[in-house]
Amino acid sequence: MDFIERYNGCGLLIVIKKKIAEAIGIQKIEIFETESFGKLLVIDGKVQLTEFDEHFYHEMLVHVPMNSCKRAKKVLIIGGGDGGALREVLKHEVSRVVLVEIDRNVIEMSKKHLGIDNGAFEDPRVEIVIEDGRKFVESCESFDVIIVDSTDPVGVSDPLFDRDFFAVCAEKSKVFCSQSQSPLVQRDLFRKLLRNSACMMNRRIFVSTIPTYPLSLWSFIISGDHSFRYVKRNFRKIEGKTKHYNPEVHFSAFMLPEWLKKEVEDVC
Amino acid sequence: MDFIERYNGCGLLIVIKKKIAEAIGIQKIEIFETESFGKLLVIDGKVQLTEFDEHFYHEMLVHVPMNSCKRAKKVLIIGGGDGGALREVLKHEVSRVVLVEIDRNVIEMSKKHLGIDNGAFEDPRVEIVIEDGRKFVESCESFDVIIVDSTDPVGVSDPLFDRDFFAVCAEKSKVFCSQSQSPLVQRDLFRKLLRNSACMMNRRIFVSTIPTYPLSLWSFIISGDHSFRYVKRNFRKIEGKTKHYNPEVHFSAFMLPEWLKKEVEDVC
Repeated sequence: MDFIERYNGCGLLIVIKKKIAEAIGIQKIEIFETESFGKLLVIDGKVQLTEFDEHFYHEMLVHVPMNSCKRAKKVLIIGGGDGGALREVLKHEVSRVVLVEIDRNVIEMSKKHLGIDNGAFEDPRVEIVIEDGRKFVESCESFDVIIVDSTDPVGVSDPLFDRDFFAVCAEKSKVFCSQSQSPLVQRDLFRKLLRNSACMMNRRIFVSTIPTYPLSLWSFIISGDHSFRYVKRNFRKIEGKTKHYNPEVHFSAFMLPEWLKKEVEDVC
Repeated sequence: MDFIERYNGCGLLIVIKKKIAEAIGIQKIEIFETESFGKLLVIDGKVQLTEFDEHFYHEMLVHVPMNSCKRAKKVLIIGGGDGGALREVLKHEVSRVVLVEIDRNVIEMSKKHLGIDNGAFEDPRVEIVIEDGRKFVESCESFDVIIVDSTDPVGVSDPLFDRDFFAVCAEKSKVFCSQSQSPLVQRDLFRKLLRNSACMMNRRIFVSTIPTYPLSLWSFIISGDHSFRYVKRNFRKIEGKTKHYNPEVHFSAFMLPEWLKKEVEDVC
């Protein structure tokens, strides 16, 4: 059986061995066993992760902001109910991590059928909150780092990409990082995210290849008090614990190709 | 209509408007009009290029070696019958470019139906040779740069990846560069290329995202007398003429993720 996720005029095909589980609540969640990529998590028809390449995504989303921070003790993750980002955050010397997920099913299905959290949900430093991340940040405490690990900005994730949300996150964090979609396949959406996050201090774009995401070139927004000068020092504490990320990949992720540099300058 | 190229347990789908042309000789060559990617060139069922992202590939394949060279006047391109690599080489101050293509049909079909060469085939500095590249290098003159722009190493391109070929090219060039497949989807093939090219002096791997290639993460081999110290100076002469490539992208292409660093060290 073939699973196909279609984008604009193209798509990714993944050969499926069988469907392991399905839940329909706020979102339709499916977990498959694939022929070559291990387990596959799909939400509302879109690939969220495969065991094969989830570390490409989670390591860049987490270690870029965490290692760019002078001292990250308190971390907020919005979304990320699969536990992959949480697992990566816990590799750092953190004292408290709050994960706010709107859809309880994502956590339950992931714990039961995926297991990529490696026990992160049970870590005593972790607090899980089932709530709309947009509402949560309005009244929450401040964090050293806020990480947004959301689905595409349609449906439940849409409010996680508006101007007010970015403004509140900037207030409540020293360093902020969010995935920001494909600049190739979702150009209009990417440009909207650029515009909406333009209010954030020291906002920069970085990119990474995520093989099973639309056309693989994925973008991220980072803002706040982040700096390259902490990266090597922080990396030494997690060295050997990453499969994809290292300081060279960190620095090079900010080196944008000509077309993307123009796109970013154009909108900003 | 959907065009699907299958790899190992996955694949890329491209929505086709119509087939523009087809030729069957040494290889089966097809050119399609796609919904989102402009024209698509397929050889033996595999995507060679789309108008949408061919510059990602051709600019990295060409400008990385050309800009790493002290002075590149004489250039040999093996393969590259579509004319994309030739177009990029001619942006530099070269005096002579020989393009050796085994399959005349690739050139004729590309000139007639693709046009990505931008007239490069008619440039007075260019000589086209229809011959097996493997045989050609045995008795050819020396070049400043040799670039191998081949199809997958099965069928006609297989000899372009063997140990003897790499050895001869090392002898006949100051700087050598070849595409070296996907380290993710074609891991065995990639490892074979690493082993076979291990004889080459100063051999390094660099990578780039090529959106329509298998899982988009593509690798290249460069060897010989190449150096980062020429890059910025050489780039100034072609500045404004590239869509993807710039010196930052050049340097960052050599920054390999942990898993790939290990893979390369493991085989070398």
